[in-house]
Amino acid sequence: VIQIAVIGAGMMGSALCVPLADRGHDVRLIGTPLDHEIIRALRATGRHPGLGIELPPGVRAAGVETLAAEVADAEAIVLGVSSAGIGWAAQVLAPALRARPRPVLMVSKGLELSAGGPRVLSDVFAHALSDAAPGCAPVAICGPCIAGELARRVPTLVVLGGRDLGIVQRCAGWLKTPYYQPRISADVVGVQVCAALKNAYAMGVGLGAGLHERAGGERGSVAMHNFEAAVFAQAVVEMGALVAALGGEPASAWGLAGSGDLTVTCNGGRTGRFGALLGRGFSVARARELMASATLECLDVLAVLERSLDACAFGALGRAQLPLLSFLIELGLHDAPLEMPLEEFFRA
Amino acid sequence: VIQIAVIGAGMMGSALCVPLADRGHDVRLIGTPLDHEIIRALRATGRHPGLGIELPPGVRAAGVETLAAEVADAEAIVLGVSSAGIGWAAQVLAPALRARPRPVLMVSKGLELSAGGPRVLSDVFAHALSDAAPGCAPVAICGPCIAGELARRVPTLVVLGGRDLGIVQRCAGWLKTPYYQPRISADVVGVQVCAALKNAYAMGVGLGAGLHERAGGERGSVAMHNFEAAVFAQAVVEMGALVAALGGEPASAWGLAGSGDLTVTCNGGRTGRFGALLGRGFSVARARELMASATLECLDVLAVLERSLDACAFGALGRAQLPLLSFLIELGLHDAPLEMPLEEFFRA
Repeated sequence: VIQIAVIGAGMMGSALCVPLADRGHDVRLIGTPLDHEIIRALRATGRHPGLGIELPPGVRAAGVETLAAEVADAEAIVLGVSSAGIGWAAQVLAPALRARPRPVLMVSKGLELSAGGPRVLSDVFAHALSDAAPGCAPVAICGPCIAGELARRVPTLVVLGGRDLGIVQRCAGWLKTPYYQPRISADVVGVQVCAALKNAYAMGVGLGAGLHERAGGERGSVAMHNFEAAVFAQAVVEMGALVAALGGEPASAWGLAGSGDLTVTCNGGRTGRFGALLGRGFSVARARELMASATLECLDVLAVLERSLDACAFGALGRAQLPLLSFLIELGLHDAPLEMPLEEFFRA
Repeated sequence: VIQIAVIGAGMMGSALCVPLADRGHDVRLIGTPLDHEIIRALRATGRHPGLGIELPPGVRAAGVETLAAEVADAEAIVLGVSSAGIGWAAQVLAPALRARPRPVLMVSKGLELSAGGPRVLSDVFAHALSDAAPGCAPVAICGPCIAGELARRVPTLVVLGGRDLGIVQRCAGWLKTPYYQPRISADVVGVQVCAALKNAYAMGVGLGAGLHERAGGERGSVAMHNFEAAVFAQAVVEMGALVAALGGEPASAWGLAGSGDLTVTCNGGRTGRFGALLGRGFSVARARELMASATLECLDVLAVLERSLDACAFGALGRAQLPLLSFLIELGLHDAPLEMPLEEFFRA
């Protein structure tokens, strides 16, 4: 039983407090500057407005102004910030991590384009801390996990990826409960590349439901599942190729981090619903409006991937070998016509 | 444009007549002794009772009594019989294939246990014909394809597996339409092993929907998708291991034949619905009753796999390395308690 600070009171950081508290850890959930309303609600009622549940009594919610104090004694830090918040987190955590290095777990997902090519967020964070805490080897929490289900203790398997397997193993020990079971992986790049890519690809699978609806079809077993399955399988294979091009293990794309996370994102995620809106014929702008306040990581990821492809960041792997991704870039970023290039799938 | 005889007027054989007729082939759909009612309906109304659509005018339906005559001039033969009908088909087709060897395509899915271990159906068929047509190298049509969607021209990618890639290529040329696109594979074992296994594993993924309903949950984004995704990913990895143990290419399990066919079976197939009934707590016997007349390949496949495991037919791969399959065997064949062994997933 340890003291853990979770930074960021969004859906996933807050959901992770449930198994942590169930394990008996001393959990402090610290909001970012964007989380004032959530922290206020949590302190007033115990209920998380986004998750729609009460967090366990062992979770202490605190505002960002208490961050330095709350983090000081924590034996581990969980980053629950969005990908855009990684730089901020590195800055505010630098003093504490310089004073005392300790494991950092990250639920943030995404890719960032650096001069050397696309970088996974654990490397972005470690790089930002390279002066203050040069040995920092963050552990990325990836794999199929809808926050709302974890918060309700639905059985969930995730994969922890990190460069230092000893740290990964310690983190897994802290997290494990009967319903939340981490597996460990040394493929810190592969699992995070999958975690970022799955959002883009789930948008593609989601198109099928919208196309079916647009054609006047009703929900049921005869829909466009054949189409969706072809897109799904092509996505798994393209994810494997992209992971390999970025120095990861393609096998990560077949397992929890890849096919597992893709299926959960198609079935229960925002991105699948966004894809369905595009399938129904809405423009990207209109579909974004209809998704209201939901964060759409898929478009951010597609933008990074487009610039990476333009920069030939994947070596020999180019648009010709990634027909599904290339189409999704054109559709999601440039409102191209919805003509799925099935002809080009599985041609290699 | 060729003359093609499709043997078996069930869902998949009949659905395949749609792209064949759209390509302009001369298509004869010949019922088995079990298809009298279907053939009568097709001849009377043009409508296939199971598919719920009219077949294209170019498809000529005929009863089993005309089989010899209809097959005589066919340049290719499609086997649309169930796995139980393979022996019968070999027997009735032996004279024609002896007189003139020609490509045989198979949509039948399954595994059969022989003295040498589990065998894919193309090998069962070729073996049964080894005297009459010793060179027969059937082409297996695998991959994600719900018959009712193919019959409605939903875009569909399949994979044709055969030992003779020249024949596979010719068959692909005959089948290809804008909405039905075959890919070719030399991994005739791997694609068929996946086609059989996916039914067993889809039953496992389907449990999640039933468990959610049993717990009083409603349909929606917060369900048991995390659980389903863990089962899905474990299934893909176990399929890869089983394919390898039987001499196929594990990569078949990541692509159309594996992850693709698994997702379509979970989303639109009978087996997923059967799994959901088990998840709701019904006994196997009661769930079978509730599925009425639907064929449940999953239980047949599980029975073959159980006997194969008992016979150590997968070499070093045993129950310990296949925790999901082992559980599904106990659940589906022996009404074991529904305790998914998540602890044992991704342990290798």
